[in-house]
Amino acid sequence: MTISRLTTDKTTYQSANDAFYRAFAEADADAMEALWAENTPVFCCHPGWPPILTRGEIVASWTEIFSHGAIPDMTFVPRQMALVGGLGIVCGIEMVGKAHFACTNVFASEAGGWRMVHHHAGPLAPGTFAQIVSPVDPGRDARH
Amino acid sequence: MTISRLTTDKTTYQSANDAFYRAFAEADADAMEALWAENTPVFCCHPGWPPILTRGEIVASWTEIFSHGAIPDMTFVPRQMALVGGLGIVCGIEMVGKAHFACTNVFASEAGGWRMVHHHAGPLAPGTFAQIVSPVDPGRDARH
Repeated sequence: MTISRLTTDKTTYQSANDAFYRAFAEADADAMEALWAENTPVFCCHPGWPPILTRGEIVASWTEIFSHGAIPDMTFVPRQMALVGGLGIVCGIEMVGKAHFACTNVFASEAGGWRMVHHHAGPLAPGTFAQIVSPVDPGRDARH
Repeated sequence: MTISRLTTDKTTYQSANDAFYRAFAEADADAMEALWAENTPVFCCHPGWPPILTRGEIVASWTEIFSHGAIPDMTFVPRQMALVGGLGIVCGIEMVGKAHFACTNVFASEAGGWRMVHHHAGPLAPGTFAQIVSPVDPGRDARH
């Protein structure tokens, strides 16, 4: 798997985003569960699925997805990362083989670490990825 | 258009979410432009589109969408709303005729008002909406 080249600071939400894609590609249910916040509202929108609104159901959904095995050909291409309102927001493209998905990931600080509070992925239209150029200022932060 | 029944406080991000769907249904480009944050990183993922990463391109994308006219049969069904950190995060289902989309909207406080910093909508698989039951604690807030 190719993960963000932007993540050198292991204390940031960008590191948590890397850990998310590592768990995703490796179908590591325990690592995925550990990533999701426990004391913050969470929700998750898998491609085509209805929104999943509780941590327990989100963890179960990943276990279901992971039942198909690891996804070694997954690539995550970051498009934008920003710290807004105390939350880390990541936008990027997930590529699994020839399938491409626009995704949003949101991380909150909880118990001293960055935990996932939201994941939303939806399919790109065929051929769309070719329109995409290099990331726009992917590492910028805006603190408010 | 049916909008959230949860929004009675006109000062909240929920009110901004209502304004978003009003502008969307009415194809009101000026109202839509006014909603998007000006001094905060923004991005927008329309169904099938690549992520749009700048305010100017986001506004232009809505103008393009609105060129097809108003969408009076749009309905927004809130599923979860939470104040996390300093951001208002809304999850719901957009229904336009028989098409259903899972959506995430994120609002930040800017210049004393709630402005949109993120919109992500992706199609639900056919028949998925029937699985959805009543909202789970849609008005809860978690302040951290």
